[in-house]
Amino acid sequence: MPCPPDAPAAPGADATVIDIDDPSDPRLDDFRDLNSVDRRPDLPSGRGLVIAEGVLVVQRMLASRFIPHALLGTQRRLGELAETLAAANRPDLPYYRVDADVMAEVVGFHLNRGVLAAARRPPVLDPAALLAKARTVAVLEGVNDHENLGSIFRNAAGLGVDAVLFGPGCADPLYRRAVRVSMGHVLLVPFGRAPDWPGGLTMLREHGFTLLAMTPGPGSVPLAEAMTGAAEARVAILVGAEGPGLTETAMRAADARVRIPMSRGTDSLNVATAAALAFYERVRVGS
Amino acid sequence: MPCPPDAPAAPGADATVIDIDDPSDPRLDDFRDLNSVDRRPDLPSGRGLVIAEGVLVVQRMLASRFIPHALLGTQRRLGELAETLAAANRPDLPYYRVDADVMAEVVGFHLNRGVLAAARRPPVLDPAALLAKARTVAVLEGVNDHENLGSIFRNAAGLGVDAVLFGPGCADPLYRRAVRVSMGHVLLVPFGRAPDWPGGLTMLREHGFTLLAMTPGPGSVPLAEAMTGAAEARVAILVGAEGPGLTETAMRAADARVRIPMSRGTDSLNVATAAALAFYERVRVGS
Repeated sequence: MPCPPDAPAAPGADATVIDIDDPSDPRLDDFRDLNSVDRRPDLPSGRGLVIAEGVLVVQRMLASRFIPHALLGTQRRLGELAETLAAANRPDLPYYRVDADVMAEVVGFHLNRGVLAAARRPPVLDPAALLAKARTVAVLEGVNDHENLGSIFRNAAGLGVDAVLFGPGCADPLYRRAVRVSMGHVLLVPFGRAPDWPGGLTMLREHGFTLLAMTPGPGSVPLAEAMTGAAEARVAILVGAEGPGLTETAMRAADARVRIPMSRGTDSLNVATAAALAFYERVRVGS
Repeated sequence: MPCPPDAPAAPGADATVIDIDDPSDPRLDDFRDLNSVDRRPDLPSGRGLVIAEGVLVVQRMLASRFIPHALLGTQRRLGELAETLAAANRPDLPYYRVDADVMAEVVGFHLNRGVLAAARRPPVLDPAALLAKARTVAVLEGVNDHENLGSIFRNAAGLGVDAVLFGPGCADPLYRRAVRVSMGHVLLVPFGRAPDWPGGLTMLREHGFTLLAMTPGPGSVPLAEAMTGAAEARVAILVGAEGPGLTETAMRAADARVRIPMSRGTDSLNVATAAALAFYERVRVGS
C-alpha cells in the first residue's frame, strides 16, 4: 500500500489513511474554501472538480463513473465508510483524516457532513450513445437553478428515467449544491449535452422518441392522457425553467404539449415537482 | 386618507404611501434584520409576525385571512401592486416607500424582492371545522424543514388539497422561508393543528376520512392502487419527515400504507415530492 513515510496506513479501512492536523496542508487544497467560487483559480469557474458530501453521496460516487482521487473526513465517517471502501478496492485512495474543527477550517463551514470526496471530471458522455440505450429521457432547457437540477436528478433516479439530455441555458449539474441535492444521483444517472439546439430535439426524434413538452399553456393535453398515448413509445419529457418555461422552439418541436391538471387560482409547480409527476406517470402507464 | 403630515399620500395607489429615507426609522421595525431570529424580542421566537416577500406573495397575502398592517417597498413594486392595492380597498395601509439601498439596509440583505408585507398572526383555525369541509387533507408529522413545508403547501394548493393538518414535530409554516417557498400558499391553504396525537388521527377517522400513510416500508400498496380504492372516500394523506418518516403510531392508525413505486437502488423521494405524487394521484382518480 503506497503511503507517505510520515503517515502509515491505518488498519481496518481499505484506503490510505493519512492523519493531518494542519489546516493549511497543501494536500487538502482540493477541499479548501468550498463556498468560494474561485477556490481553484487553475480550474476555470471551479468546474474542474466534483465534490461529494456526506456518507451516502460519497458511497454513490464510489459506485459511479466519477473516480475520487482523495477523501477528507473524520474518524467517525471513516468508520461508517469502512465497508464501502473495502468493496471499492482502492487501497491507493487517500483518506485525509482530520478532526471536525480542522475540517471546518479547511472547507470554510461546519455543516460539511463530516466527509468529502473529490473527483476530476471524466469525459462527457456521447448523447447519441445515451439515447440509443434509453426508453425514457428527461430533456432540460434553461434549468439554471442548481437545486432544481439536483432535485430533477433525484426524481429521475427514483422514477425510472434512463438518461438526462441538456439543452441550452442549464446550470452545471456537477456543481456541489446540485450533487448534494440530488443525493448523489447526478453521479449515477447518465447525462449528455445536446450538440446544438434545437438539433438535440431532432436527434431525439431520429432515435424514435416521442417528445412531450411540459407546459401549463394553451393547447396542452392532460398528463395521464399524454402518457397513455405514448405508453408503447420511447418518450422524451421536456421541461423548461420555472417562470419562462420551455422556449417556443422546443414546444414547436414537440409531439404534444402536456399539462398537469392544476387547481384554479394556482399557476405552476416547481419544475422538479412537475418533472417528478411526469416521470411517475410514465412509470405508471408506460412500463 | 390618514397620512402623517410629513408624508403626503401619493396619487395612483390605494394605500398610504409614506416616503422614508432613514433606515433607522422606527416605523420600519417590523421589517428590520429579517435574517436574525431574535429580531423582535417582544415577539417570542420571532413567531409574532408573518412576512410576505415579493409581488406575488404580497398579492396572495392581501387575498388571504392574513391582514397586513404595513408594506415596505420600492416605487417600482408599488407600481406593480397598484391594481392589487386598489382592489384590496385598504386606504389605511401604509406603504413605506424606500429606495433599494435603504431597503437592503433595513431588512439586512439585498435579495428581498423589492417589497415586503407584514401581518400579525390571526387566531388559529379550528381543526374540526377544517375537516368538516374538506374532501382531501394532507396530514404532516415531524416535517421540520421550512423549505419542505413550503413546498408541500405549494403542491397542496396546485393539486387539490383542501386543508393541511399538523401533527407533532413540524416546523412553523408561517416562518418567512416557508411562506416564500410556498409562493404564499401557506396563507391561502387552510391549516390547523391536531389537538393531541394520535388524537388528531382519531379525529380524522371520526370525520370519515380514509387514512393513507405514505411510506416506502414493508406492507405497503402502490399509490395508484390505494387511491383508486379510496376514490369515493374522504382521504387523509399522511407524510412524515424525510429520513425517519412516519412514526409507528401514525402507521398503525392508518387504513393503508402506501408506497410510490421506485427504481431499484434508490431509497426515497423528497417528502414534498412524495406528497405531490399522492396529491396528483388523488386528483387523477378521486375527483
